[in-house]
Amino acid sequence: MSGWLAIAGLGPGDPQFQTLQVTAALAEATDIVGYGPYVARVPDRGGLTKHMSDNRVELERAAHALSLAAKGARVVVVSSGDPGVFAMASAVFEALEAGPADWRDLDIRVLPGITAMLAASAAAGAILGHDFCAINLSDNLKPWALIERRLQLAVEADFACAFYNPSSKARPDGFGQALRLLQELCEDGRLITFARAVSTPDETLTTLPLHAATPEMADMRTVVLLGSSRTRLIERPGRAPLVYTPRQVQV
Amino acid sequence: MSGWLAIAGLGPGDPQFQTLQVTAALAEATDIVGYGPYVARVPDRGGLTKHMSDNRVELERAAHALSLAAKGARVVVVSSGDPGVFAMASAVFEALEAGPADWRDLDIRVLPGITAMLAASAAAGAILGHDFCAINLSDNLKPWALIERRLQLAVEADFACAFYNPSSKARPDGFGQALRLLQELCEDGRLITFARAVSTPDETLTTLPLHAATPEMADMRTVVLLGSSRTRLIERPGRAPLVYTPRQVQV
Repeated sequence: MSGWLAIAGLGPGDPQFQTLQVTAALAEATDIVGYGPYVARVPDRGGLTKHMSDNRVELERAAHALSLAAKGARVVVVSSGDPGVFAMASAVFEALEAGPADWRDLDIRVLPGITAMLAASAAAGAILGHDFCAINLSDNLKPWALIERRLQLAVEADFACAFYNPSSKARPDGFGQALRLLQELCEDGRLITFARAVSTPDETLTTLPLHAATPEMADMRTVVLLGSSRTRLIERPGRAPLVYTPRQVQV
Repeated sequence: MSGWLAIAGLGPGDPQFQTLQVTAALAEATDIVGYGPYVARVPDRGGLTKHMSDNRVELERAAHALSLAAKGARVVVVSSGDPGVFAMASAVFEALEAGPADWRDLDIRVLPGITAMLAASAAAGAILGHDFCAINLSDNLKPWALIERRLQLAVEADFACAFYNPSSKARPDGFGQALRLLQELCEDGRLITFARAVSTPDETLTTLPLHAATPEMADMRTVVLLGSSRTRLIERPGRAPLVYTPRQVQV
């Protein structure tokens, strides 16, 4: 069988954040499979077929990609950011496990990319410079009560936190609920950063006290970074402030 | 002032994991600053000065890089992986905050890279495909009791966990202690993956039940990934198994 499947991360937006490995896989592919806006980021060329699908059809998309590779195609499933962080890699493995046995013979690789939280932390400074966690705030695939429990435990552990998928049209109220809970749990002066469309022309970065944050500050293109209790802000005259978490915890 | 400072991530080892942005910054630099083995990964060329330092002198190294940039040099501070994850970015900001006021006028950028846990998760499958946390197991800069508390809360939250710096010559016993605690806290059948030197010729990946793991399985070049209670293994005849965490939590 000469086909293969690569599950690749395109990074947060700017092609400059893409790895050389992903660039090479895209150049060898016969087929690109993914959510429409991500597939659109791959330049057209002769011999390349693009398969664009809607949001929220991850399993069908994954099965389609596996079946193309099983027929001999060189397939790249594209995700924004990193494919292993709230993206297509797990969906492909769910489809693989549920699918025909011969799919397990396929050459399958995951090619990592710069995930949104690392691009956002870097754009702001180094918010995730000490222990941290990443939580998907969508309750499409898990109960909301579990999200609230994880928020509580994350604050108790004093992790910095990256929140993916804070808000969408289908879930207009979840982020407001999460924000109220965090405001109850955290001390005054805690910092929060809203990083929207990092590395694209639409990039905005806003850091403010958690207790001044409001739900509409996050949308579908935002990753939210909550500092730990030790996250600090360095003011710079004429430049954006730097937000970072020191490495040391005083005993 | 024409100098600038970039704090760049070289990725886990293979230059193919480097981003185009980091490659471009290295090409424009006059000076590379970092821990010896990381600086050695940057190819030599005319006009480029390499400043190699020992491990554990992060603040001195950071201050040196800032002072070079303040004198007009184009400086890249290099980290392995991502500079914002248990690496040089926070150290540079600590030095900046403690240093002369004119350092705050400098053009400083953080250029993200593929951090070890994402490379390891991708090499094994998609272990970090659901909510997860990243914990530095070194107690050089924080009390050991805090590490144990974070391990307990992380297991309680049912995060998959990435453990950086599990073991070193100076800290031979810490990982054994952490492992015993995790074995007490987690159910039978929990999976753990030891990913050593991912993307290099020395790469090894070992996935086994947590309760069969032993302290000497981790060394300085290892990142350890503990699955959540839902992390699964897909056997593949003639190929390495795939280890992944499904996206869905059944209610």
